Amino acid sequence: MSGHGSEKGKKMYIDELGKKAKQAKYFLQGVTAEDKNHALHVMADALEKNSRYILDKNEIDVINMEKSGATAALLDRMRLTVERITQMAEGLRETAALHDPIGELMEVINRPNGLVINKVRVPIGVIGIIYEARPNVTSDAAGLCLKSGNAVILRGGSEAIHSNKAIVSTINKALQEIGFAEGCILLVEDTGREVATSMMRCNQYIDLLIPRGGKSLIDSVIENATVPVIETGIGNCHVYVDETCNKEDAINIIVNGKVQRPAVCNSVETILINEKIYKSFLPEVAKALAPYHVEIRGCDKTLSILKEAVKAEESDWYMEYLDFILACKVVRDVDEAIEHINKYNSKHSETIVTDITENAEKFTRMVDAAAVYVNASTRFTDGSQFGFGAEIGISTQMLHARGPMGLKELTSYKYIIKGNGQIRE
Amino acid sequence: MSGHGSEKGKKMYIDELGKKAKQAKYFLQGVTAEDKNHALHVMADALEKNSRYILDKNEIDVINMEKSGATAALLDRMRLTVERITQMAEGLRETAALHDPIGELMEVINRPNGLVINKVRVPIGVIGIIYEARPNVTSDAAGLCLKSGNAVILRGGSEAIHSNKAIVSTINKALQEIGFAEGCILLVEDTGREVATSMMRCNQYIDLLIPRGGKSLIDSVIENATVPVIETGIGNCHVYVDETCNKEDAINIIVNGKVQRPAVCNSVETILINEKIYKSFLPEVAKALAPYHVEIRGCDKTLSILKEAVKAEESDWYMEYLDFILACKVVRDVDEAIEHINKYNSKHSETIVTDITENAEKFTRMVDAAAVYVNASTRFTDGSQFGFGAEIGISTQMLHARGPMGLKELTSYKYIIKGNGQIRE
Repeated sequence: MSGHGSEKGKKMYIDELGKKAKQAKYFLQGVTAEDKNHALHVMADALEKNSRYILDKNEIDVINMEKSGATAALLDRMRLTVERITQMAEGLRETAALHDPIGELMEVINRPNGLVINKVRVPIGVIGIIYEARPNVTSDAAGLCLKSGNAVILRGGSEAIHSNKAIVSTINKALQEIGFAEGCILLVEDTGREVATSMMRCNQYIDLLIPRGGKSLIDSVIENATVPVIETGIGNCHVYVDETCNKEDAINIIVNGKVQRPAVCNSVETILINEKIYKSFLPEVAKALAPYHVEIRGCDKTLSILKEAVKAEESDWYMEYLDFILACKVVRDVDEAIEHINKYNSKHSETIVTDITENAEKFTRMVDAAAVYVNASTRFTDGSQFGFGAEIGISTQMLHARGPMGLKELTSYKYIIKGNGQIRE
Repeated sequence: MSGHGSEKGKKMYIDELGKKAKQAKYFLQGVTAEDKNHALHVMADALEKNSRYILDKNEIDVINMEKSGATAALLDRMRLTVERITQMAEGLRETAALHDPIGELMEVINRPNGLVINKVRVPIGVIGIIYEARPNVTSDAAGLCLKSGNAVILRGGSEAIHSNKAIVSTINKALQEIGFAEGCILLVEDTGREVATSMMRCNQYIDLLIPRGGKSLIDSVIENATVPVIETGIGNCHVYVDETCNKEDAINIIVNGKVQRPAVCNSVETILINEKIYKSFLPEVAKALAPYHVEIRGCDKTLSILKEAVKAEESDWYMEYLDFILACKVVRDVDEAIEHINKYNSKHSETIVTDITENAEKFTRMVDAAAVYVNASTRFTDGSQFGFGAEIGISTQMLHARGPMGLKELTSYKYIIKGNGQIRE
C-alpha cells in the first residue's frame, strides 16, 4: 500500500478496505442462513485449532503493555488464555444458533391498485467498528456482523494489534477455505488516529459506524464522522428511591448497581432519595456500601446525615465515575427525580424503587432513557440479559436502535413491491 | 436576542430555540392522543380563519421572488391561495385521523428471572427540519411531528420566510390558547447559513435532523452535522427491461417514470435494456417519449439504434437529471443490470420489468435500494401511495428508516422493565 504515510495515503488505505468490504456486502446478500452458520462454526474451530499461534501473538501485546506500566486490571483484560479462546469460539457457535433475522417479512401492505408491498429485513451493509482494548471483542463483533449478513471493518486499539491480527487472519483463512469473500471481515492494521479519521468519513463504503469505548472516543467520532453513527455505552445511571417502597430491595439495587462491576456502563452513578425517608434510609445505604469503601458525594441534606460524605459539585451530577464513587441527592418527590434525571442522564438506564403504581407509571413514561426499570437493577441492560443472545453494544441515542443491540439491530429493511404494470395516475 | 450577529450569537439563538423545544418534548410526553388530535384540528381551523393574513404575507415572498427573476414554476410553488391553505388545513385534519403510533407495545419479553421487558414506542424528541421553498411543507411537517409527539424546529428557506412566519405564528397562537407548550413548533427566523450550521451541531437539544432539498443541501448537512441525520430524497432511479417481458408495460413504466413529474426524486433517470431486445425495443421507447421532447443519452449500442440520441459520459450514469433527459444503456443480462444499479444508484427506487420469476427474485434480493419494484413504476415510492397517510420525506440511508417516512418512522422506542427486586448475579 503505497503513499500510506500521507493523509491521502490513509484515505486510500481505508478506501481499499472499503472496496473489498463493499464487494463482500453484495456477496453476503447471496448466501443462505446455513452458509453463514457453517462459516461461524468454521471460524470457531479455527480459533481453537490455532490457539497456540494466537496466544503467542497475544503475549507480545501483554509484554508491551507491561513495559508501558499498565495496571493489573488492564493486563488481565488483554491477556488471552486457552480457556478464553474457547469462550470466544463458543460465542461464535452460540451466535450461529441464534435466529437469523435476514429475510424476515416484517409487514405486507396490499394497496387498492393491486400493488403488494413487502417490507423485508436486510443487512445494513458495511459496518465499521472502532473499539478499545479487549481482543475478544474482535471475534464477537465479527461473528455478529457475519450472522446479520454485514461486512465489517474492525479498528481495534494499537495495544491489541498483534492479538487482533492473529485472530482475524485465523478467521479469514478459514473463511476463504469455504469460499467466503475476502472482505467479509477486515482489520484496520494501521491503528493511527489518521486512519481512524478517514474511516469516519468513508461514506462511499461504510454504511454505519459503531464506536465502542470511553467518552473521548465517542465524542471524537460524533465530532468527526460523516458516516452515520450509533453512539454507545456512556452510562450515567440513577436509582430513585420513592417514599413508599421495599427498603431492602432499594438497598440491594443500589449496592448491586454500584459495586458489582463499577467499570461498566450500566452501573449506578447517582442515587436520588425521597425527602420523606432520607433521614432513616441514608444511614442504611452507607452501612451497606461501607464494606466496598464507596465514596459518597452528596447534596447538603445528604451531608447533614452522612458525616463521612463529601460535598457534590454541580459537575458530579453529570459524572460517569466508573469507580467506587456514588453521588447522592435528596429530592422532593418523583417529579423532581424525573427532572433531575432528564437534565443530567446519558439516556442509558434508570430505576425507580417504589410501591406506588402511579409513580412507577409516571417515572417510566417521563424518564428519557433506553431502559427504564421499576424495582430492578440497572445492571440488567445487556444483550444477553434481555435474551438477545449477544450484543454489539448499547445504544444511547434515539435513532435506529436504542439500548442493547443484538442481531436485529444490525439490520435495516427494504420494500419489495410487486405489480402487473401499474403506473402512477 | 443579543449578540445575534456573531457566530456565538447564532449558536445562542439556536440554543434558545433548542431549550424551548426540549421543554416542549417533555410536555408532549404527558399529552394524550386525543389532546394531539384536538390540537391538529385547532391548527387547521386557525389556518383557514387566518387565510387572509397568511396570503398577505405570502404575497411579499412572491413579489420578492418575481423581482429576483424566478421562473413561473418556482413562483407557482411559492404562491398560496385560499384553496391551497384549505388543502394545508385538510392535511392537518387527515393527520389527526391517522393511527397514533405512540405508546404502542412493540414487544414483550418475559425473562426467566421474572423481569418483564416491554418495548414501547416513544417519540424521537426534538426534530430539526431544514428545507427549501414550498410553504405547505411548514404545516405538513409541523402536523406530522406534533402527531408523533415530537417537538420540531423548522428552518425553511429565506424566500418563504414571510409565509412561514405567518403560518407558524398562526398555528402557535391557536396551540397556546389550548395550553400547548410554546416550543412544540418553532421556526428559525434567521435564515442565514450560520444559523443553519449551528442547528446541525446542536446535539444538546436536537435529536434528529432531516434535510429536505437538493443534493447540495443534503451534502452540506452530512458534512457539517454532528446531530444524527436522515438523508432524504436524492433519487437516481432505474428501469431495467428484461429479455422477456410485457413490452407495453415496460414502455408505460418508462414514460410514467420519466415524464409525469420529472422534478421529483422517484422519477426515472436511467433505463437499462437487455441486449436480446434492444434493437426492436429502443425505437418503441423513443417513439413513446417523442411527444415529451426527452433527450436520450446513450451507450454505443443505444446510439447505433437511436440516431437522435447523444453519447452518455461516465458522469451521466450518476446523474439525477430532474429534467426531460434520460440515460440509456444496453446490458447483457439481469446480473449486469444489478451491477450497474448498485454502482451508480442513490438507493432510492428501482424497477425490473420482466416475466421471468427467477430474474425478478434475483433483482429484488440483490439491488440495494429502499424500494425495489417488479413490473410497476418507481413513482409509487411515496408515503401516501404506500398507505402511510403522509410523509416527512423519503430516506435514502440504511439507518433507522428507509424509503417513505410516515408517523412510525418519526418514533423511537424505550424498554420499560418491571421487576420485584431483581439484582444481577
